[in-house]
Amino acid sequence: MSRVHTGSRLRALALALGLLPGLVLAADDIIWRQVDPDNLVFIDLFEGQVAIELNPLFAPETVKQFRKLLKEQFYDGLSFYRVIDGFVAQGGDGSDLGKLSMVPLIDAEFERELSDDIEFTRVQKNDLFAPETGFVDGFAAARDVSENKVWLTHCPGVVAMARNDDPDSSRTDFYFVIGQAPRYLDRNMNIFGRVIHGMDAVQKIRRGRPSENGIIQNETTSSRIRGMQLASEIPKNERLSAFVMDTNNKGFEKILINRRNRKQAFFHHKPPKVLDVCQVPMVGRITK
Amino acid sequence: MSRVHTGSRLRALALALGLLPGLVLAADDIIWRQVDPDNLVFIDLFEGQVAIELNPLFAPETVKQFRKLLKEQFYDGLSFYRVIDGFVAQGGDGSDLGKLSMVPLIDAEFERELSDDIEFTRVQKNDLFAPETGFVDGFAAARDVSENKVWLTHCPGVVAMARNDDPDSSRTDFYFVIGQAPRYLDRNMNIFGRVIHGMDAVQKIRRGRPSENGIIQNETTSSRIRGMQLASEIPKNERLSAFVMDTNNKGFEKILINRRNRKQAFFHHKPPKVLDVCQVPMVGRITK
Repeated sequence: MSRVHTGSRLRALALALGLLPGLVLAADDIIWRQVDPDNLVFIDLFEGQVAIELNPLFAPETVKQFRKLLKEQFYDGLSFYRVIDGFVAQGGDGSDLGKLSMVPLIDAEFERELSDDIEFTRVQKNDLFAPETGFVDGFAAARDVSENKVWLTHCPGVVAMARNDDPDSSRTDFYFVIGQAPRYLDRNMNIFGRVIHGMDAVQKIRRGRPSENGIIQNETTSSRIRGMQLASEIPKNERLSAFVMDTNNKGFEKILINRRNRKQAFFHHKPPKVLDVCQVPMVGRITK
Repeated sequence: MSRVHTGSRLRALALALGLLPGLVLAADDIIWRQVDPDNLVFIDLFEGQVAIELNPLFAPETVKQFRKLLKEQFYDGLSFYRVIDGFVAQGGDGSDLGKLSMVPLIDAEFERELSDDIEFTRVQKNDLFAPETGFVDGFAAARDVSENKVWLTHCPGVVAMARNDDPDSSRTDFYFVIGQAPRYLDRNMNIFGRVIHGMDAVQKIRRGRPSENGIIQNETTSSRIRGMQLASEIPKNERLSAFVMDTNNKGFEKILINRRNRKQAFFHHKPPKVLDVCQVPMVGRITK
């Protein structure tokens, strides 16, 4: 029952794009920002290529240590040893145990004070988990003006440090959020990055069993990190560039307004005029 | 840099389970319900085995037509032709175009009246998208008592019918939700099932490019359905059984209470006492 796309079939499909609308963004509204090569990390998985953007504004010490570990090729060959579908893929050497590592601990970087250098583009007031959600430099965030605090929020694609009960016990092991946003972890973890390319590869990382808390007992079967490199450590002429949506401008605000006011004929029932900050698509692209 | 899990390593990891708590459920609190073989579908993908549970209570006509199509082996060999990471994987023959199919259209089954046969276990009042969220027979749902309406809600793993702008244009093609819950689609689609096993395989379905609205132009590279079978059509002695969490009991309510009141020492910042209905883990298991 082989079916081949023809030109007209594709055009017909394009006409049918009323179907599940709202994820594709009007290209005209996007303003691109180049990712600083000091904040750009390429992760080479057997599942595919992944790029993440680091966030030294919210997690300066974590980013500093992570960059150092990258230079030492610390992560190369290590595995994702705890992976729960719909939740997180956690990788590293198991140093969250606090025993197997000589790498220094990192203090909590769970949230920070509001300040003038933080441009917050609001997405939603009275979100279920926070007084306000929004974006800061492309990162999903939340803030509480009454407490004068702002923090990065756990959306799919977030990269954060694992830790033990001690809030100051982040070290080397990190996790990707791979499922419905576990927002209850907000203000409890050192979020220090986000996936900007290759989330499909991240989604292929081998899962453990939920009944074993995702721990993969036979590590020979786990997904493995082939290598991780900071872009600024790669010679300029060999280096790829990454671009992400700039969230600090009118074009992005227009995208948010269009998502909030679903005007398409498709919507038989008009959705409530609210936005889940973790459901706003944030596209990135990698180029030569 | 090979590292092998030893028994003590595993025990140490188990001790570290304070790490990102809350997804693993206390087995004692779970009461299992066997899935009716008439509502159980096995989907054989090259990516792995998937099981879904159909919901004739909310989508009787959709389920009726879907069962008929399964008996005719309609889906065998068809592909996922529109796949957007973080959103949906849509498969079938492209009949959403309204031209390529002789299969009858299905009327909208977007929501239904509240009635005594619907047992609603509440999860959250004043959810961002609905006055109340909860579970009905294991399915994430929402209701509006003032309108006397209840509907299934778009969480990861939901299975729903694609359609065109016409609300009564569902037919054969369906999608899996594979990312952050697109709740704005609630009350707009015929949701007729949910993945109860094999979401990791669903997550491996090949993605299209977001810039092309996820449409995979070269269909020879797309993920393909090897076969789909209704469990009740398989001889009893060859048939697997599926069990899911029963959500209509005190054990499940206890799970919800524990998730809402995060008592673990892990939580340096106490999360708000709210629950996202799409972030409550719903485990299923398949047995001989």
